[in-house]
Amino acid sequence: MKPTDDRPQKALRLKRLGIDTYQEPIVYLRRESPVCRAEGFDSQARLRVATNGQSIVATLNIVDNGLLSPGEMGLSNIAWDLLSAKHHQPATISYAKPIDSLSNVRSKIYGNELSEKDLNAIVQDITSGRYADVHLAAFITACSGYKLNLAEIIALTKAMVNAGETLSWPVNQVMDKHCVGGLPGNRTSPIIVAIVAANGLVIPKTSSRAITSPSGTADTMETLMPVALKLEKMRQVVEQEGACLAWGGAVKLSPADDILIRVERVLDIDSEGQLIASVLSKKLAAGSSHVLLDLPVGATAKVRSQEFGEDLSELLKQVGGALGLTVRTCLTDGSQPIGAGIGPALEAFDVLAVLQNHQQAPKDLTERSLSLAGQLLEMGNAAKIGQGFKLAQKTLQSGAAWKKFQAIAEAQGGLFEPPKAKYHYQFCASGYGRICHINNRLISRTAKLAGAPDAKAAGISLHCHVNDLVETNQPLLTLHAETPGELKYAQQFLDNHRDIVVIEEANV
Amino acid sequence: MKPTDDRPQKALRLKRLGIDTYQEPIVYLRRESPVCRAEGFDSQARLRVATNGQSIVATLNIVDNGLLSPGEMGLSNIAWDLLSAKHHQPATISYAKPIDSLSNVRSKIYGNELSEKDLNAIVQDITSGRYADVHLAAFITACSGYKLNLAEIIALTKAMVNAGETLSWPVNQVMDKHCVGGLPGNRTSPIIVAIVAANGLVIPKTSSRAITSPSGTADTMETLMPVALKLEKMRQVVEQEGACLAWGGAVKLSPADDILIRVERVLDIDSEGQLIASVLSKKLAAGSSHVLLDLPVGATAKVRSQEFGEDLSELLKQVGGALGLTVRTCLTDGSQPIGAGIGPALEAFDVLAVLQNHQQAPKDLTERSLSLAGQLLEMGNAAKIGQGFKLAQKTLQSGAAWKKFQAIAEAQGGLFEPPKAKYHYQFCASGYGRICHINNRLISRTAKLAGAPDAKAAGISLHCHVNDLVETNQPLLTLHAETPGELKYAQQFLDNHRDIVVIEEANV
Repeated sequence: MKPTDDRPQKALRLKRLGIDTYQEPIVYLRRESPVCRAEGFDSQARLRVATNGQSIVATLNIVDNGLLSPGEMGLSNIAWDLLSAKHHQPATISYAKPIDSLSNVRSKIYGNELSEKDLNAIVQDITSGRYADVHLAAFITACSGYKLNLAEIIALTKAMVNAGETLSWPVNQVMDKHCVGGLPGNRTSPIIVAIVAANGLVIPKTSSRAITSPSGTADTMETLMPVALKLEKMRQVVEQEGACLAWGGAVKLSPADDILIRVERVLDIDSEGQLIASVLSKKLAAGSSHVLLDLPVGATAKVRSQEFGEDLSELLKQVGGALGLTVRTCLTDGSQPIGAGIGPALEAFDVLAVLQNHQQAPKDLTERSLSLAGQLLEMGNAAKIGQGFKLAQKTLQSGAAWKKFQAIAEAQGGLFEPPKAKYHYQFCASGYGRICHINNRLISRTAKLAGAPDAKAAGISLHCHVNDLVETNQPLLTLHAETPGELKYAQQFLDNHRDIVVIEEANV
Repeated sequence: MKPTDDRPQKALRLKRLGIDTYQEPIVYLRRESPVCRAEGFDSQARLRVATNGQSIVATLNIVDNGLLSPGEMGLSNIAWDLLSAKHHQPATISYAKPIDSLSNVRSKIYGNELSEKDLNAIVQDITSGRYADVHLAAFITACSGYKLNLAEIIALTKAMVNAGETLSWPVNQVMDKHCVGGLPGNRTSPIIVAIVAANGLVIPKTSSRAITSPSGTADTMETLMPVALKLEKMRQVVEQEGACLAWGGAVKLSPADDILIRVERVLDIDSEGQLIASVLSKKLAAGSSHVLLDLPVGATAKVRSQEFGEDLSELLKQVGGALGLTVRTCLTDGSQPIGAGIGPALEAFDVLAVLQNHQQAPKDLTERSLSLAGQLLEMGNAAKIGQGFKLAQKTLQSGAAWKKFQAIAEAQGGLFEPPKAKYHYQFCASGYGRICHINNRLISRTAKLAGAPDAKAAGISLHCHVNDLVETNQPLLTLHAETPGELKYAQQFLDNHRDIVVIEEANV
């Protein structure tokens, strides 16, 4: 079919194709559509889609068959959402302007130092969605391998803060806490926030949902209280209780970070410079002044060696310092999961058990929470140096932390009872001996197969730790699922990956 | 919807969605499909799709609405083709294995030298389609900025040759010629092949179709003779005539190159190492022993400076030498188009005019063809050093080249008359003075808007060169199109980009 229509740039009508392309916006055009042929658009071209005063840059996929009617332009879900499009709203399409800041990326590839202005231009273009995934991959790669110096990391962090929303609080000292890289079950934040706020410090905690893990802090908190707070509500809760436990997604803090993270994840490249900018830009944008960073170190954690952890700590402090943020880091044991529960509700039960001083509360979770809370209390001058842990312990044991937690929940809309799963399966030791290894990644994967984090009650209860002595057929973990199908998948995965828990068998 | 089916890994039925995602294979799954939920697949996951003994790795896009029925799995065009799939053929899906060779890419990012084994592993994984576009972008970036040393470039070239098919010819000396980077209208190959073969040298020329340009040599040749030759036919033509002018796409020479090129193009990053491996791997795989490389140098050409051209030349010779290939390079003027025609058939008319010694044959095309052919004749010992140009000129002027060209066409299936376009538009000078610049990129873009290369007769006839004196309203170029719609689009683009030809106006 040849174009015979001689009116160029005729508007097409938008159609939501319902295709989830994650965060890369895709526009779909019919191969034989006049606009596609006449403009010479090739598949993978970067196009500007404009409608109703808004525009985005999207990658073209050409459609050969009946998915689109003549005169229609298809959009992937993210493209649809970014444009706030409506069905059959008219839209025009043109080549996207060349991305000028790519010359800065090229300059970095050739080993040149990037200025604040260069990095600002890159981050602005990333935030406005002008970089395709391959451009993001090139930028990440060019910055990896210790290729950003201190000044560049500082400039990148600043640029990322400036590219999004920022919060501010009417106090001088705003505490915050963050764990770098996942460790299953390491749900210390709700406990720490309660302890720290009970001692009069201000800690407006915003958390994210899971990206690759079976639960993010926001996923766990959602089983306990409303977390999708609007900014006004968040302010009101913090004013009243000195703290909140909110989902950060409602506020656009350092949006470039969210865009970079998903490509970094696929590449699985460690870029210390971008890791630092990612962590600190979120904290600076959230209006924090004092941040405690938990860096679990372990073979299957993000920070794989003590040495890398120490380098990272030093840089985090320097970059934070340059931007007016007091940073303290804590290298912790990242060799095995923390707590018993893995999955949103199962982690919530752990948190409740610790806060309520239950006998069976997981000791490792309690210890780690107290240790981190103690350091925050010292950083905020609520405890003398060396006295933080004791104060944290007292706050927890007296019930003051639990009381504060309930008050925060009340202010956010009320405390819920987390859901429980209907279907269970016990995974038992096939021999006896000492547990020498628990694989964090397989644990996470199994919990996700069981349905976490979408199925809130799904996940794993872990009944053992490294160095425990176990008997043959002793339960090592219990699977929780909301459907028999999900239970079965997780169970089969476990049966194929018995090395999820490695037992050094005693002599028979 | 929750999965209730307890049979895991149940086969889904394949459906061709008719979506052209260029070369990245995409698999589409329903969000609520049991396999998608239970396996915990996220959008952008890398999955292995297996059917009928074959498998590919594809990126997941999740589909929310009615594009797929329950039990169906959608494939993009390239995924469909790679699997040679049939409608509703059953297929299974699982996580793709981690790509081990990415650790080599990471090692390069950290500045380490890659061994032959490392590069082989990378190229094998690229060729088998296991790298997503972002991985390709990371590899290209990690190798750019002079980060590959000579040994690495040699190893990469070898790896790329080994990853595909190779041709061999029953003679010791196989001539070849290649132009690095596009220059509109620079269609010297058919002329050179005819001259060189007329002098008894063997030159089995395989060419590609256009990727971003308005015509590739194969597109132009296709308007003159059949070019999609099977290997057997190619051999027969070469045996009979000492030459062929075939499309290389039918034979899989250095397939990794085709995969890397499309990402390099989007990134617009110059990686000298990969450029060298790309060019030389194709030539080595084609069984050539002596290669002449035309490197047009110009602000809007691939080789942007004389200095880069000289560095590149030196490396091309060294790498070629190490792999048993005699390489000669020729830095030519890449500041403006060559010949009069731009577009498949229009370039074919130029080629015919030169071969037939027409009075109005473009002088620049004739000169450049003779110069390059002369060098090849010297390289192949068909002419003494310094005598090549004269021999080439004699071969052309005597009609021997035209006779050889007709014989090649006859052997390939017969000579055609190239098509002519129905619709024309003359673009004229708006002032008088001297032409100081012709923009190669805008020329290419306009020719493509007019329909080239798909519309064979479409494109541009250029009536001027840099330094020509022109009068007001003197025709500068003529648009050729097969439909009024395409003519109009190209015309409007020209009217908005009058700087396609820049005239330094004389004093009024």
